[in-house]
Amino acid sequence: AQENLLLAAAYVSDAQYNRNVPFQTSPQAIRLYCFYNHWTMRVATYIFICVDLSLALFEEPALFPLPFVATALAEVLCLAAFSARLVHFAKVTPQMVFWKDTKNICIMVTIVVTLIDLIIYGSLEAVHIHSIRWTRALRPVFLINFPESRQIRRAFRSIRNTLPDILYVFLLFLFSVLMFSLMALKLFGDRGLKTADGAPYFTNILEIAFELYVLVTTANNPDIMMPAYNVSWWYSLYFITYIIINTYIFMSVFLAVVYNNYRKHLKNEIRKLAYLKRHKMIQAFNILKVKVGTEFVVKEAAWKQLAKVVTPDISSSHLELLLRISDEGQQGYVDKMNFLRLADLLNIQVVTINLRRHPLEAWVPRVYQSSMSLLVQRMVQHRIFVWAYDVIILINAICIALDEKHPFISYAEWLFLALYIIEILLKLYTYEPRAYLGRKQFWNWFDVLIIIAALVATMANAAIQSARKYNSRQILDIVLILRILRLLRVIISIERFRVIVTTLINIGPTMLTFGGLVFVVYYTFAVIGMEMFHGKVQFFDPNFTSPDALVCGNPALKGSAFARDRYCKNNFNDLASSFVVLMELTVVNQWHVLAGGFALVTHQAAKLYFILFHIVVVILIVNIFIAFILEAFFVAY
Amino acid sequence: AQENLLLAAAYVSDAQYNRNVPFQTSPQAIRLYCFYNHWTMRVATYIFICVDLSLALFEEPALFPLPFVATALAEVLCLAAFSARLVHFAKVTPQMVFWKDTKNICIMVTIVVTLIDLIIYGSLEAVHIHSIRWTRALRPVFLINFPESRQIRRAFRSIRNTLPDILYVFLLFLFSVLMFSLMALKLFGDRGLKTADGAPYFTNILEIAFELYVLVTTANNPDIMMPAYNVSWWYSLYFITYIIINTYIFMSVFLAVVYNNYRKHLKNEIRKLAYLKRHKMIQAFNILKVKVGTEFVVKEAAWKQLAKVVTPDISSSHLELLLRISDEGQQGYVDKMNFLRLADLLNIQVVTINLRRHPLEAWVPRVYQSSMSLLVQRMVQHRIFVWAYDVIILINAICIALDEKHPFISYAEWLFLALYIIEILLKLYTYEPRAYLGRKQFWNWFDVLIIIAALVATMANAAIQSARKYNSRQILDIVLILRILRLLRVIISIERFRVIVTTLINIGPTMLTFGGLVFVVYYTFAVIGMEMFHGKVQFFDPNFTSPDALVCGNPALKGSAFARDRYCKNNFNDLASSFVVLMELTVVNQWHVLAGGFALVTHQAAKLYFILFHIVVVILIVNIFIAFILEAFFVAY
Ligand code: NA
Repeated sequence: AQENLLLAAAYVSDAQYNRNVPFQTSPQAIRLYCFYNHWTMRVATYIFICVDLSLALFEEPALFPLPFVATALAEVLCLAAFSARLVHFAKVTPQMVFWKDTKNICIMVTIVVTLIDLIIYGSLEAVHIHSIRWTRALRPVFLINFPESRQIRRAFRSIRNTLPDILYVFLLFLFSVLMFSLMALKLFGDRGLKTADGAPYFTNILEIAFELYVLVTTANNPDIMMPAYNVSWWYSLYFITYIIINTYIFMSVFLAVVYNNYRKHLKNEIRKLAYLKRHKMIQAFNILKVKVGTEFVVKEAAWKQLAKVVTPDISSSHLELLLRISDEGQQGYVDKMNFLRLADLLNIQVVTINLRRHPLEAWVPRVYQSSMSLLVQRMVQHRIFVWAYDVIILINAICIALDEKHPFISYAEWLFLALYIIEILLKLYTYEPRAYLGRKQFWNWFDVLIIIAALVATMANAAIQSARKYNSRQILDIVLILRILRLLRVIISIERFRVIVTTLINIGPTMLTFGGLVFVVYYTFAVIGMEMFHGKVQFFDPNFTSPDALVCGNPALKGSAFARDRYCKNNFNDLASSFVVLMELTVVNQWHVLAGGFALVTHQAAKLYFILFHIVVVILIVNIFIAFILEAFFVAY
Repeated sequence: AQENLLLAAAYVSDAQYNRNVPFQTSPQAIRLYCFYNHWTMRVATYIFICVDLSLALFEEPALFPLPFVATALAEVLCLAAFSARLVHFAKVTPQMVFWKDTKNICIMVTIVVTLIDLIIYGSLEAVHIHSIRWTRALRPVFLINFPESRQIRRAFRSIRNTLPDILYVFLLFLFSVLMFSLMALKLFGDRGLKTADGAPYFTNILEIAFELYVLVTTANNPDIMMPAYNVSWWYSLYFITYIIINTYIFMSVFLAVVYNNYRKHLKNEIRKLAYLKRHKMIQAFNILKVKVGTEFVVKEAAWKQLAKVVTPDISSSHLELLLRISDEGQQGYVDKMNFLRLADLLNIQVVTINLRRHPLEAWVPRVYQSSMSLLVQRMVQHRIFVWAYDVIILINAICIALDEKHPFISYAEWLFLALYIIEILLKLYTYEPRAYLGRKQFWNWFDVLIIIAALVATMANAAIQSARKYNSRQILDIVLILRILRLLRVIISIERFRVIVTTLINIGPTMLTFGGLVFVVYYTFAVIGMEMFHGKVQFFDPNFTSPDALVCGNPALKGSAFARDRYCKNNFNDLASSFVVLMELTVVNQWHVLAGGFALVTHQAAKLYFILFHIVVVILIVNIFIAFILEAFFVAY
């Protein structure tokens, strides 16, 4: 019976968390499976993934250099942990299923390949031959393929499903770009025109195709048009046509195709999840069912035991509440329909509405109920109290905008801080503190945390200042930021603003999925970029104006837009810098300058790296992000 | 009876073309109304609107200067025509309705105001005082407000309906920009940093706010970040946060709000149109109905007369067909349900499926049916024929890409032209010509027209070349373009490409509505821009390197990015140039350079003009355009 209960609990738990892992039903396997799903094991896996990914910070080209032995040891440790996790999973799941799952194969192959790469690299390093640690680009495979990263995997699936549809549009788009390139070559190639830099204009079909691809991203508009436009107004029509067709229509069609697939895919996923959840709950029901009269039901005792096994820390009042809902007729058993709802019921967060009295009322009832105290309470609850504080925030904003070096304004800061603290204390006095700082009271928490942080930082700053007679720049920066973040409270007072912000906050967790997706792609591109471009571009202090500093330490950049715009710090010399460069490429503007610079210091083919990044991140991922925001807002607004 | 028929015909015609003009039902008013709707009157109105709008080409600052008297006379003529059209409309529609309609009031006010402006400007001009013809910016009012421009008006209504929802998001967005500006001022203002140009970095809150607004459009990324990023890697987080919140999230929310409103609005409009159409058809039915048995019907004779009045050029076979559909039981009358469908039936384009024999078969049946001729026909219909021509097109593309100055390739061009002509002749030989060039055969038409145009242009070029021993550059350009457009035929061979292109072509007419919308906004902004900026920036020949030419003839531009990027031809010195500048502003890239340049030659407040343009065109119109493409593709794909 105990074993049946555990099996049923495993099904219910899987249904509750939308896990879809087929597991063996022997008692031992179930215990292993529960252990596999235990939060400590999952957290440990994530920690090892983090360590593995963060190794890129310490490997050449490193932000914080460590010897190869250290990083190699850490990596082997991580690989061992991943292997253990995988072996654990293999014990839990049926063999057939295990070997058919691409996720597991992916992880195994990556582990083996990484080990081989480590050994080769290490032995070559031992004889002082420098080779490439190319499997570092595969590390995100672990992040994607462990069953815990369902969300990111779903986003990847969404992209993969979009590919066939995108492909034809993309080919047609490329065809259009090539046609226009040919036209540009014929129209402008033999006129001896020069760009603003003095370079020949539109003379090479490959360069034209690249420039026109850049024009699709708008990054070189209108510069690319100017030489032809200077010759005749009519040539602007060529570029306007190009932009309408390729930038506006094709890019919108990409968004349309991605969005369409996203919606279709989302619907299918939701339907499939609902089906699987129901299926698992039916399995759990079939294990525990007993026959009462003509129908199969689950006895109250079994139901309670099950709920307690699934959620060990459930409070008894909560459990009673769930039972009251599931056994409406109070017949001592839960029927099938109500039983199937259990997983969803457990997911509902119960907000205990607080009709409790204020603690002060319990401790000093006479003081708290005095007419003076009641007046204060009514004042705090009054609308004018809110308005008064909005005015204070406005005055505070003006004071911040003015120069704070004036002593009066620097004192005013303390006054404002005091006023905000008084406000919070008054509110805590008026409202029941546990209700005021309840789980869903986002804005109250925001208020309190910002004020406490500002108080701590301001005091720390003052302490340092009086002790060492100077301002710590870091702490001062934090104080400044906190001081300005306080102004965000104005949003609370305007209903429509609150609605928009609440919507944005609600879609926050899913946005984090995109964060994970972007991180995976960034990481892979960063590692490849570091292998290709590290050390080619050097950053010098901006006040340093030696000829070497002006060309970022690479003479190939002489006269280039990259050097002219002082982009030396946009390099692939460590992971952090690489991520910033990739962010700039995502934003798209000036990406052709970056691509051109790195092509100059290596080879023109390096531009392919940047084009591929644009296709993957901007055309696919950013469009899925936009599709996601659109869908989320349609549902919420 | 005749009058009743005319009235019913007016209702049916209105239903057919979705016109929603209440008109008086007296026989005289109906005749006036029919005349009002006559195509000659509508075309005349459009001609006058075009003339009125094109006056901006001839007025100071003019592309083709004309004396003020000439343009003023033309404008008065146009205004007279508009007044006449309005008076005509007033005679047709009930007085109450006429005076309640904002459209009419708008037109009247614009006519009066324009006349006053003309008189003032003219009299001041007579005493040699130069003033501003500000009512020129109002000219698009005529294009929007005449009942014929229903589509553009609908798009404007769509924008107007979006405004309240957009407003709050926009205010929140502005609030966010201001918060970040304040933060930037505090974080970076007192560090004495310099931009790549050597200008002080982030020291003035207004300039910061503008720069950060520009960053939302991504136009100054990553330049705006570099000075701070050069100091410390951590400061890049400030900019990344800013971009994620304001560029990605807020801009997507704008698109979501616009799209959401667009969909809602579209649904309402379609529902309303359907309701009005049905209402008008019921009115028509009630006029013509007679009682047969227990139900009201329209007799066949009356029905036929009505259809003939509504569409005078309907063929009798077409009419018989419609009657057969409407009177299914052949009872000699049309019942109410079938009568209401008349407007839709008339809108259906009847494609007469051609089972006709090939004309050659009728003329020379023996030759056409000979085994040789049949072989040719079977060959042309064969798949390999299509493939062979795809290969020819590919070879042609390669030849074009190679240098055409080589005599062999220049002869090859004639060969290709001959091959394409032979292909078309063969197809016309094989397929029935009227079917081959039917109304819906877009690709066949495309083929034939491109080839004929290429033939004409190539021959014209050859003729000029042999006569005057030189190539006319204009004709050569056209020949080149046509030669490359021919390659588009490759699309026909690939099914998926054809689907995408057909979808795009089908939404073409509605895209023209956006063209109209954009034109109206561009025109207004261009006229205002010309008044503000004309003559401030001069274009010199690009080979001309005098110091004056390098600063676009305005010393205020010395050292500016505008002059450095050689943007002198991006000016407001005539309507055509203004439109190109506005197009560049729509594409957004480098718009801050343009805005900065025009602010330098006038006043910093001029940047507001460019910000306003960005809000109206990019945030509103481009987003509606994207929403439209998304919706169209969801329906079609
Ligand atoms: Na851009």
